[in-house]
Amino acid sequence: MSSRDQLTEAMAELLWERGYAATSPRDVMARAGVGQGSMYHHFSGKHELAVEALSAVIEDLTRESALLEGEGSPLERLKRYLSVARPGTRGCRVGRMTQDPQVVTDAELIAIVANAFDTMLSRWERTIAAAIAAEELPAKTDPADLARTLAAVIQGGYVLARAKGDQAPMDAAIRGAIGLLDAAHATAGHEH
Amino acid sequence: MSSRDQLTEAMAELLWERGYAATSPRDVMARAGVGQGSMYHHFSGKHELAVEALSAVIEDLTRESALLEGEGSPLERLKRYLSVARPGTRGCRVGRMTQDPQVVTDAELIAIVANAFDTMLSRWERTIAAAIAAEELPAKTDPADLARTLAAVIQGGYVLARAKGDQAPMDAAIRGAIGLLDAAHATAGHEH
Repeated sequence: MSSRDQLTEAMAELLWERGYAATSPRDVMARAGVGQGSMYHHFSGKHELAVEALSAVIEDLTRESALLEGEGSPLERLKRYLSVARPGTRGCRVGRMTQDPQVVTDAELIAIVANAFDTMLSRWERTIAAAIAAEELPAKTDPADLARTLAAVIQGGYVLARAKGDQAPMDAAIRGAIGLLDAAHATAGHEH
Repeated sequence: MSSRDQLTEAMAELLWERGYAATSPRDVMARAGVGQGSMYHHFSGKHELAVEALSAVIEDLTRESALLEGEGSPLERLKRYLSVARPGTRGCRVGRMTQDPQVVTDAELIAIVANAFDTMLSRWERTIAAAIAAEELPAKTDPADLARTLAAVIQGGYVLARAKGDQAPMDAAIRGAIGLLDAAHATAGHEH
């Protein structure tokens, strides 16, 4: 790995272990095993390191939400994406950033997070619209609203799992959401 | 206000503005306008201040979830509690603590958060069970699962609102959840 990549990875780890405020450039250098000369050759400081670390993590998550556009009927894809294994107690590496006071007040960092959510929400919306068109969900369903509901179940599942230090509340939240989708499915096509 | 209350309130404010790691006892004293003698008369340090601040906030939230046990049919109460006005971009003052790395690793602080969620989830569960008994929700609904789904919608709504710096995603997530409950309601009593 290049020293640039080592620094980016060290910053990503420290962001999730300690948060932005509690992470210093010195901590990042120590974790990466990279000296000051190399560090300031690649990065002007902590903010630029965080931009790079966050962008790398977001690429992973954006790749994951592409599952919404894979094989199967739209409703099957919604349920499959909801059911992706997610380590609840670790938290969502993107969602957690919205709760870091120093990240939310940094315009560039929060814009990276907002864009990642927009990409994911557009995929939810398109898949929900396709499920409505296929009469797998009721015609009166609002795709924009339901997209945010389902994304919120995942993000909130992480919060509940971290509160208890236990995966179970996350899995329960997902099962409950799938149960509601199945109930909505049962009414679809019978609305007239 | 007593100097003890001033210190507790200052700690609560700084916890949500800056997070636990970035808040020092000196910051709390400055915000409260209280001297070191008085501070260490009341509190041994930052941890004890945080226990007190968090406990005070949790009392407010626990009072709010009592709405689930108020007037109206069980389904009406579920929808009313979902619809309580919540300033999304500020974030949930309890939920956010689960994303603070220093809080999650402090056994006493995270236990306070976990207990608050348990109280709220029990109220969700009892109200959902009552809605099933009243045939307002399908008989096959799992109250424990759905309780976590609905609590997650609220917690995740905060995450989405903070990512965008906008209340709208929170409101959309809630509307979508109410739509799913209405769809589930439409199938209840017709399962046999």
